[in-house]
Amino acid sequence: MSRQIEIVEVGPRDGLQNDPVLLPTEVKLEFIDRLIGAGVTRMEAASFVHPKLVPAMADSDEIMARVPRGKGVKYIGLALNERGMRRAIECECDEINFVMVASKGFGKRNQNATPEETADLLDRIAILAHDAQIPLSATISVAFGDPFDGEVDIAVVAELARRAEAAGAVEIALGDTIGVASPWDVRARIEAVRDAAPRSRLRLHFHNTRNTALANVYAAVEAGVDVIDASAGGIGGCPFAPRATGNVATEDVVYMLHRGGYETGIDLDKMIETAQWLETDALKHNIESMLSKAGPFPGRLAE
Amino acid sequence: MSRQIEIVEVGPRDGLQNDPVLLPTEVKLEFIDRLIGAGVTRMEAASFVHPKLVPAMADSDEIMARVPRGKGVKYIGLALNERGMRRAIECECDEINFVMVASKGFGKRNQNATPEETADLLDRIAILAHDAQIPLSATISVAFGDPFDGEVDIAVVAELARRAEAAGAVEIALGDTIGVASPWDVRARIEAVRDAAPRSRLRLHFHNTRNTALANVYAAVEAGVDVIDASAGGIGGCPFAPRATGNVATEDVVYMLHRGGYETGIDLDKMIETAQWLETDALKHNIESMLSKAGPFPGRLAE
Repeated sequence: MSRQIEIVEVGPRDGLQNDPVLLPTEVKLEFIDRLIGAGVTRMEAASFVHPKLVPAMADSDEIMARVPRGKGVKYIGLALNERGMRRAIECECDEINFVMVASKGFGKRNQNATPEETADLLDRIAILAHDAQIPLSATISVAFGDPFDGEVDIAVVAELARRAEAAGAVEIALGDTIGVASPWDVRARIEAVRDAAPRSRLRLHFHNTRNTALANVYAAVEAGVDVIDASAGGIGGCPFAPRATGNVATEDVVYMLHRGGYETGIDLDKMIETAQWLETDALKHNIESMLSKAGPFPGRLAE
Repeated sequence: MSRQIEIVEVGPRDGLQNDPVLLPTEVKLEFIDRLIGAGVTRMEAASFVHPKLVPAMADSDEIMARVPRGKGVKYIGLALNERGMRRAIECECDEINFVMVASKGFGKRNQNATPEETADLLDRIAILAHDAQIPLSATISVAFGDPFDGEVDIAVVAELARRAEAAGAVEIALGDTIGVASPWDVRARIEAVRDAAPRSRLRLHFHNTRNTALANVYAAVEAGVDVIDASAGGIGGCPFAPRATGNVATEDVVYMLHRGGYETGIDLDKMIETAQWLETDALKHNIESMLSKAGPFPGRLAE
């Protein structure tokens, strides 16, 4: 079993895209710098969707033009169609992430596509990624439940994973977009996806809407997954998922993994500082992470 | 593997004892009625410590005189010494819980005793419980970490468990009093305690201070534990544990377990209503549970 877990920091993209506060580009760049200073080496930094749909990501081209390069940090850009894909390639993203949907209700509202249509679109997008020699990953969103349709069929998730691998995605992420997963669901879906896409690396993406996110991370790690999404401070949520609260907080994930003897390359104290900076200086509203309030252990408790 | 998990509701005792709001006896009794209405069959209802130390529990005798009896609900009273034990017996508690400490720093501040002294005290108290024919359980507090001393030796936890079993405790609870445990710690301590006290039923008690409580519940259940402490709304904390936030919320635990196919006997909707009642009518301050905000799934999400 691997003792090294890779954290994909999604704060600058999934974290900020739905926040009521629109951060200036300079502040986003400071956020990215602080994340790198805390040890982040892979992050979602930009989203190439229409700026009218996600205004908070309207400066993605400029962000990608100005992020620090050559420091071993990989920047992921999100693309939902060929147009977005071309922009992501132009902006020299190190990786591109495409979002499939596992259910019709969410798919219609999030990107006006059925599960099968997102798989067909991935086929076309994958050609562009292949030609540009940029690694492509696919996130299967609402993989654990849909806010409009309810339960999501595990067979649909597995079929989308099979299609993603066939299209050439190098990594498949299972997204609990609305935070309904239990750790037993996590284990069952990982098994189904491994059967359907046996050559793919798996990444798991959790929201803490129902307090289960760290249980789900633990279940994923126990099942051998070694790539986990998280956002500094636990910021973020999906505009098309009612009542979805933020991503699982990076510092909370890192605390748990380090206590369990895993390495992440993240400096917990610096990540807590980054979360606190988000709360007090950047977003200026309450964030949901617990480590930023309670502090690590052992260490500062009795001060 | 058992598919039935017993939830011990600790809201009326551990949940309320440190709350800044002192609830009138009538409101506490309504709380207990609501819990029973939600399906609770075992709860911590009283604490027989000095009322000057824990003013919120000063009405424990009256509470125990007035709780509904004969409905199959078992009421647990907390006792830390022989005097408290005699009061608990007089009040006809169905079970008595004694608290051992796994570390000196916390033990001195919480009950002015070393780990060994609490084990010696348990020996004396157990005689009273035996004579009164009342089941006695022992909680090993700060079993995962001490806010003053830092790391807690797993061998001390195991030795206390051995002493508890030898004294005649029918159940041993491991308490993560300050919310520092990781699920890997949980697994390791369960194994150590099983070796040291092989005949004892195990119960696990978590606080969500660092967001790991449900991960810890999951790890405990996966390890075969079938008794879990939780408090409605996630209320509670320990006055002698700095920055300790509340117990893991009953409704959050129940949601996760039900999604995983386990039965608890708890009606999730009614438990959420009870938590919301605590927030809006009884305590009138924010509570920490997530299910009371997000609602269950599937069900009310898209309304």
